[in-house]
Amino acid sequence: MLANVRIVLVNPTHPGNIGAAARAMKVMCLERLVLVQPRLFPSAEATALASGADDLLARARVCDTLDAAIDSCGLVIGASARVRNLRWPKIDVRDAAAMVAHRPEADVAFVFGREHSGLTNDELERCHYLMNIPANPGYSSLNLAAAVQVVAYELMMTQAGSQVTGETTGEDLATATELNNFYDHLHRVVLDIGFLDPDSPRQLMRRLKLLFNRARPDRTEINILRGILTAVEGVNRARGSGGV
Amino acid sequence: MLANVRIVLVNPTHPGNIGAAARAMKVMCLERLVLVQPRLFPSAEATALASGADDLLARARVCDTLDAAIDSCGLVIGASARVRNLRWPKIDVRDAAAMVAHRPEADVAFVFGREHSGLTNDELERCHYLMNIPANPGYSSLNLAAAVQVVAYELMMTQAGSQVTGETTGEDLATATELNNFYDHLHRVVLDIGFLDPDSPRQLMRRLKLLFNRARPDRTEINILRGILTAVEGVNRARGSGGV
Repeated sequence: MLANVRIVLVNPTHPGNIGAAARAMKVMCLERLVLVQPRLFPSAEATALASGADDLLARARVCDTLDAAIDSCGLVIGASARVRNLRWPKIDVRDAAAMVAHRPEADVAFVFGREHSGLTNDELERCHYLMNIPANPGYSSLNLAAAVQVVAYELMMTQAGSQVTGETTGEDLATATELNNFYDHLHRVVLDIGFLDPDSPRQLMRRLKLLFNRARPDRTEINILRGILTAVEGVNRARGSGGV
Repeated sequence: MLANVRIVLVNPTHPGNIGAAARAMKVMCLERLVLVQPRLFPSAEATALASGADDLLARARVCDTLDAAIDSCGLVIGASARVRNLRWPKIDVRDAAAMVAHRPEADVAFVFGREHSGLTNDELERCHYLMNIPANPGYSSLNLAAAVQVVAYELMMTQAGSQVTGETTGEDLATATELNNFYDHLHRVVLDIGFLDPDSPRQLMRRLKLLFNRARPDRTEINILRGILTAVEGVNRARGSGGV
């Protein structure tokens, strides 16, 4: 999964960004880091910021040119957090991730430029697409490793796709019958304690049912709630008279 | 846009992460940073890593408790990169962003835990949802500021995509403070009626909080529930003696 994807950093200036980018990659299951003429690499600072992703640093490929870095790639995507006034085909990060998912057989490169000046036009010419990472028009200073993190996150989300599960709970949800028995019990108790307004009984019970239905209680929770109701009934009996 | 969203960092240890989180926020148009007992703040390191987002640091609110940090929030979402075996309603980052987009009127908090240990169960009890950021099962070491970046990115993407929202929910959701007052009331009552097991008080209250948090009660519903509690207290007083 995602083994065909490489992250290419062109001329990174700060070794810390290389380490942080490696960490950002590994946490989202990306493994192939390629560096084009890094100012300083390897370095202790990169290793420190990789924080356990130093295996990616150890296996990083260092190249002299962008061409070498993207050699076998069938899809090359250049990243930018600034709006560029260029006639490049532009895509957003999500579309780029979808493209990758649709071509699991192709080698893919995501190319990130220098911290301060991004990619040159020469470098962009190597890219099939210009990928725009959305940013505040008044402050588009996206950190390099943060940009890698966003892209890696989208790639992982897209790959996971339908594997992302929806709210499985471990515990058994209460059945409709169990819920109804609880509502009957609740109804008796709010009558017993004189809370239920006889003029609009349905209104109140309907609201309470809606509330508890939304929570989708499990069996244990229903047992707790009924335990509380039983304790209230006990107190009410102890009071003696009953009705209010 | 996104002015109703606050990012809450609980006990951040490294000042650099606070600065990097501020930068991550500002680049995606988030502005409200709240810190709960940061180890060190303000600090030169935070300012350096904020890299032009130091206005967010200057306006950051520092709180003694998580309760104070989320006071007026109608939606509180706790972040986790680990899979937790809890019956919390789980959502992913995209669903969380969609929820925010659908309720532009509610104050929303995204709560991030400590660098090494995340959020405690006590803190998670304040959250309506546990938001799972996808991560490599073998390496889930997502940096704090990188986690903020991912969430901020999704928020910006969702806002950009759904400028035309519909679906406003007629009624006001209960705020965190209103919910807490309800839980305090519920706690008193289950003690009064002798239901609460003194050996595991937290267990019971935690389960009840989880249940009601999932339902995301509105203000009217909280008023109904508190009305029922008050009626139970009346019955208990009428019984005379008190304890069981």
